[in-house]
Amino acid sequence: MSRALLTAGDLAGTFVFAVEGGLTAARAGLDVLGILVLAFATALGGGMVRDVLLGAVPPLALQDWRYATTAFGGGALVMLLSGPLGHVPVTPLLILDAAGLALFTVTGAGKALSLKATALAAMLLGAITGAGGGTIRDVLLARVPLVLRADVYAVAALSGAGALLLARRLGASAVLAASVGAAVCFGLRTLAVLFHWKLPGILPQP
Amino acid sequence: MSRALLTAGDLAGTFVFAVEGGLTAARAGLDVLGILVLAFATALGGGMVRDVLLGAVPPLALQDWRYATTAFGGGALVMLLSGPLGHVPVTPLLILDAAGLALFTVTGAGKALSLKATALAAMLLGAITGAGGGTIRDVLLARVPLVLRADVYAVAALSGAGALLLARRLGASAVLAASVGAAVCFGLRTLAVLFHWKLPGILPQP
Amino acid sequence: MSRALLTAGDLAGTFVFAVEGGLTAARAGLDVLGILVLAFATALGGGMVRDVLLGAVPPLALQDWRYATTAFGGGALVMLLSGPLGHVPVTPLLILDAAGLALFTVTGAGKALSLKATALAAMLLGAITGAGGGTIRDVLLARVPLVLRADVYAVAALSGAGALLLARRLGASAVLAASVGAAVCFGLRTLAVLFHWKLPGILPQP
Repeated sequence: MSRALLTAGDLAGTFVFAVEGGLTAARAGLDVLGILVLAFATALGGGMVRDVLLGAVPPLALQDWRYATTAFGGGALVMLLSGPLGHVPVTPLLILDAAGLALFTVTGAGKALSLKATALAAMLLGAITGAGGGTIRDVLLARVPLVLRADVYAVAALSGAGALLLARRLGASAVLAASVGAAVCFGLRTLAVLFHWKLPGILPQP
Repeated sequence: MSRALLTAGDLAGTFVFAVEGGLTAARAGLDVLGILVLAFATALGGGMVRDVLLGAVPPLALQDWRYATTAFGGGALVMLLSGPLGHVPVTPLLILDAAGLALFTVTGAGKALSLKATALAAMLLGAITGAGGGTIRDVLLARVPLVLRADVYAVAALSGAGALLLARRLGASAVLAASVGAAVCFGLRTLAVLFHWKLPGILPQP
Repeated sequence: MSRALLTAGDLAGTFVFAVEGGLTAARAGLDVLGILVLAFATALGGGMVRDVLLGAVPPLALQDWRYATTAFGGGALVMLLSGPLGHVPVTPLLILDAAGLALFTVTGAGKALSLKATALAAMLLGAITGAGGGTIRDVLLARVPLVLRADVYAVAALSGAGALLLARRLGASAVLAASVGAAVCFGLRTLAVLFHWKLPGILPQP
């Protein structure tokens, strides 16, 4: 995956997750600084986990000023807009989260491939990178993370990373493969959100 | 610690923690995908933390297909069995957790030694590896982890790792030392579970 | 940052966070082993995160016996003192936390600089190191961490790291720059605690 494409995907994912993390923080009643911190952790957590697991340290998110600026900028945008916007409904938040999931899944898998990871490692790293930021956000808010309780979340990430790998294997360019992977992940997760796909539990709840 | 022994211990621990994580997820009312994700995180979290702390990245759990397959297999087994089994009592879960704790404590300490860590680092890394998977499981479920609230948990891990180190110092083979360490850890923790060993708190609870 | 200064700051931060983590554990009703484990995690978590993000693995906290000894010693001190001390009020805990935040922010930024990180990375790593231990403590207790809900927490860490960097740029010695950074961080956070600085939320709470 070319460096420029990776950076573009990373920064887009950073912005999307920063806005989403900031809005979630606002809904949870955090003050303005808490909003900035949660925007930062949600936006940069996934990429930092990816870089640590790949041994690419210090993580890009800490070295390249564009990452922190984008993350804090997304958080600041939330503070500017949420006053006029008033109450934030949950569905747009879930769609934003799906976009961040798709972008980071693709950059996670792509960076793993460019560092010579195996196909399996690239697929799992894609899913971990994608789900990482949102999981850190929910853990910091002392909530069970989306990746455990949401319909078709980890499966969307694994499918997106798998589609990227398949496209690359079939000879697609890095840009095309990344686009296919992101579309599969975002599409699956968004459909699950919009149509409230529900999977059965195993045990009857008390 | 030989590579084959390490892999065997790792895969056994992965399976045990996957089943235990899956059962805990089922008890918590997660759906079938949530069960698979929690089985994966519980089973592979400890080893990934160990590999990151040792600089052995990407972690084995992401590179070797047997790890992910074992983890998802353990989760799938839970889904097949838990219908007929009905309600899952808590004591078998705690015994399974003790087995995972013992297996990962031993592989954590053994891998640290084989990478030339000091004896202290090997002991602490053993305990962190052993307790890591279950701690990630509980954090994801927004619960205070067993390592903080259970009787004789971290002490069992430290004792098991310490027994392994002592056995190696006394000239025992890697297999024997690992077996002694696992037996000490599993024995201590199981006795604590079965006999409800309770340690005093410090402050009177309000 | 000289090795000796880094070690001194690290061990002081370890002790302060160990006492604070142990007291918090006692307040939360954990038993004597839970107190030791939480003291260990709070005291050494921030430094381990720093070392992992910098690729300095295995982390110093696992290799050098003085770290584990200091952490367990701080936890043991809590057990000896808390009986006679009785109920622990919250303000001294917050001041201790501010001291740990300041010490680890300075060692985090200093170690990052000595490993040739950029100024931005050093500032962010300082804040992450400082806030890391307390965040791990709160996550393990299934609470929303201080860094999200406290007044002027992350800002104090970023300001302290920024002050250290500025002082170094202006030609100050490593000792002087670290002292200035720690004073700025500790001062800001302590003033926020004592005067209950409160920042506005964004959304009206339901």
